[in-house]
Amino acid sequence: MPLRPFYFRYSHMAQPEERFLSAQESDPIKMGWMQGFPPPEDKRLDFADGSFFKFPQLRWSVAHMREFMPTISVSRDPTGFDPLPYRLDDDIDAVSFRPRNSDQSMTWEASLWKNYTDGILVLHRGAIVYERYFGALTPNQQHAAMSMTKSLNGTLGAVLIAEGQLDETKFVADYIPELNDSAFADATVRQVLNMTTALQFSEDYADPNAEIWQFSAAGNPLPKSKNYTGAIGYFAYLKTVKKQGNHGEAFGYKTVNAEVVGWLIARITGRSVAQYLSERVWQKIGMEQDGYYSVDELGTPFAGGGFNAGLRDMARFGELIRNQGQWKGNQILPRRAIEDIEKGGSKTAFSKSGHPELPGWSYRNLWWHTENAHRAFTARGVHGQTIYIDPKAETVIVRFASHPIATNSANDPYSLPAYEAVAEYLLSLS
Amino acid sequence: MPLRPFYFRYSHMAQPEERFLSAQESDPIKMGWMQGFPPPEDKRLDFADGSFFKFPQLRWSVAHMREFMPTISVSRDPTGFDPLPYRLDDDIDAVSFRPRNSDQSMTWEASLWKNYTDGILVLHRGAIVYERYFGALTPNQQHAAMSMTKSLNGTLGAVLIAEGQLDETKFVADYIPELNDSAFADATVRQVLNMTTALQFSEDYADPNAEIWQFSAAGNPLPKSKNYTGAIGYFAYLKTVKKQGNHGEAFGYKTVNAEVVGWLIARITGRSVAQYLSERVWQKIGMEQDGYYSVDELGTPFAGGGFNAGLRDMARFGELIRNQGQWKGNQILPRRAIEDIEKGGSKTAFSKSGHPELPGWSYRNLWWHTENAHRAFTARGVHGQTIYIDPKAETVIVRFASHPIATNSANDPYSLPAYEAVAEYLLSLS
Repeated sequence: MPLRPFYFRYSHMAQPEERFLSAQESDPIKMGWMQGFPPPEDKRLDFADGSFFKFPQLRWSVAHMREFMPTISVSRDPTGFDPLPYRLDDDIDAVSFRPRNSDQSMTWEASLWKNYTDGILVLHRGAIVYERYFGALTPNQQHAAMSMTKSLNGTLGAVLIAEGQLDETKFVADYIPELNDSAFADATVRQVLNMTTALQFSEDYADPNAEIWQFSAAGNPLPKSKNYTGAIGYFAYLKTVKKQGNHGEAFGYKTVNAEVVGWLIARITGRSVAQYLSERVWQKIGMEQDGYYSVDELGTPFAGGGFNAGLRDMARFGELIRNQGQWKGNQILPRRAIEDIEKGGSKTAFSKSGHPELPGWSYRNLWWHTENAHRAFTARGVHGQTIYIDPKAETVIVRFASHPIATNSANDPYSLPAYEAVAEYLLSLS
Repeated sequence: MPLRPFYFRYSHMAQPEERFLSAQESDPIKMGWMQGFPPPEDKRLDFADGSFFKFPQLRWSVAHMREFMPTISVSRDPTGFDPLPYRLDDDIDAVSFRPRNSDQSMTWEASLWKNYTDGILVLHRGAIVYERYFGALTPNQQHAAMSMTKSLNGTLGAVLIAEGQLDETKFVADYIPELNDSAFADATVRQVLNMTTALQFSEDYADPNAEIWQFSAAGNPLPKSKNYTGAIGYFAYLKTVKKQGNHGEAFGYKTVNAEVVGWLIARITGRSVAQYLSERVWQKIGMEQDGYYSVDELGTPFAGGGFNAGLRDMARFGELIRNQGQWKGNQILPRRAIEDIEKGGSKTAFSKSGHPELPGWSYRNLWWHTENAHRAFTARGVHGQTIYIDPKAETVIVRFASHPIATNSANDPYSLPAYEAVAEYLLSLS
């Protein structure tokens, strides 16, 4: 059996010009994935061959990741629960906006279908004003956060810096000597958190020699085949990453930086990112459900993309950040850490990154910054995962989605203006 | 890579005369299993080769099953939680009893160590009078229930019968035509629920040709090797089970009966045992944590042994049964179903089963019946898992454990008399 690359990479290969089934046509419940006892042959989804994460199958899988792979829980406080207040606003559905590069306006409600939304929740001043579930997601299930995982770990990294446990000016290898012969040896903690490292690491999924495939193979939790000679586990893979250029000059979105942040968190706290996220956040703000991480063969959580959580719990996390680490009057995370996230990164470094679709944006502490008039910033994950925090509008929008195209450039034209329009609408109510 | 049999079988091969590390010596945290980032080579536990479930490694793994394999959640109500009242009684530690075949008395507290207890909780009249955690278990983790899983599914089976959805006098194949060519074709639903089927199915782990190995291979969630020709998945395996003798004459403890019950539940309700347990129980009685099931390659929960749950939640389940399906005044499960469980099975059929260490016991609805003066009955799983319900003493005892020897005959001498002694003590307080 050949070693298959790790799951979430497959759908990157989809071409934008392909004609995909619509959100309605690809409804995973109607399509019957994994339904029946046992499910019929043509409705079975397989992890080992990656078919479970092809479109439209992935529409089912994003809400059932645990059923395909080993995972580690991010435990909530089993005896605590803070309900989020409701102040539902039916007028939001009709809020309209102009999609990018379009002459025709679109309603918020229409954008949810256009973007293959699985779950959407809008908090305004801490109250739920909008909440809907689609596809395979229900309120008591978790959904893949994909690369939003990075922002959770960037937050923990900023917390450790604010508390003086981690020095952002030190080299990574000062904390992790195992990385002495890698590209991370002379990268600072800050450079890793801002992804301004210079790495020979291609995430070009069309290139079979791209490093992303070796990374994926190392992190695949299935037993390796006998002739496999690569790294086993995320940490081991990081040792092999080579430098290409000078650190600190340009933003380059490379998942391995987030794995390094995960390793730093583990080395400093003595806890995996799953355990530490539980201790610092998941047990502290009345979460409804445990979150969970996928793990590699050695039980290491996938810090760059393996997190899963409930929709309302992701909204709680977003609200904690919007409130600069406060929850119900208690300072859960240090204010300075969140302020450091809020201030955004270098627009110059970002502009060198080849993201023309995100003009004027920046990146810092593994968060994306729109740098718009509201200073909105976001956690983003492939296939449309979003936490959108608008400080001025006192709004947090969380979306889980299963867009057929992995890259968010496919859904941003119908997402970012929609978020801005709802934020403006909520601001206008104040 | 050879296909490895499924996990929980390994430790069955341990011989009673072996000298094992004591509970204190084998403390999984002190032994450092899977600790470190990454864990050092000699502290890693592996699923594929089964080493994660050898003693003493299994002491860590029983509280971390999800980190090794794909699972499906048994969701609680994320917005509901019923705290269990506390009325702790420090005198319980000193309650003493005479272990079977022993002249020396032992205290309750000493028995916990002797039995490699991971978690123990005693409810008296619905209040927690005793609760302790050992080893790798904490209050916000789940522990493997092993074959206690059967009793949960036997309960759901009894519920379906009481509600008229399942006819205990019908043949299994009346509901599941796929089993027409198997031993289950002419077995009644009642015979399967009481394990009085006559099956050619050996659970002799010392025999490499025993059918249990084929069953285990079929249920192993890892991809099969190319030369594998056996069944894929639990349901497919059941079709291959052959009859040996006459149904209805003797009790024979064979896990495949519980898988048939799982299939019946799924076929009738349109829900897997994980989903149905969530709907009927886990969402109804204020559980603190989701439970979860391990699954086969097709996502089918392992109805005979794959359940995991928190200690307090298993106690809630036990209390629900003790109260004949009532929870806080509401009838959650039909009283008739629980009465059918309480009445026990045929002692004659049981006496033919080769369980001389359990004299006078019976088995019904996948529950074990002591048939003692208090009419105590129990769910039991290998390595010491127990729900012990004593109706007369209004007591429920739940124990998670990781005894080095799989069969409960190794710990029963220090367990059953201890339960009886604590029940008598609590009864004496009334």
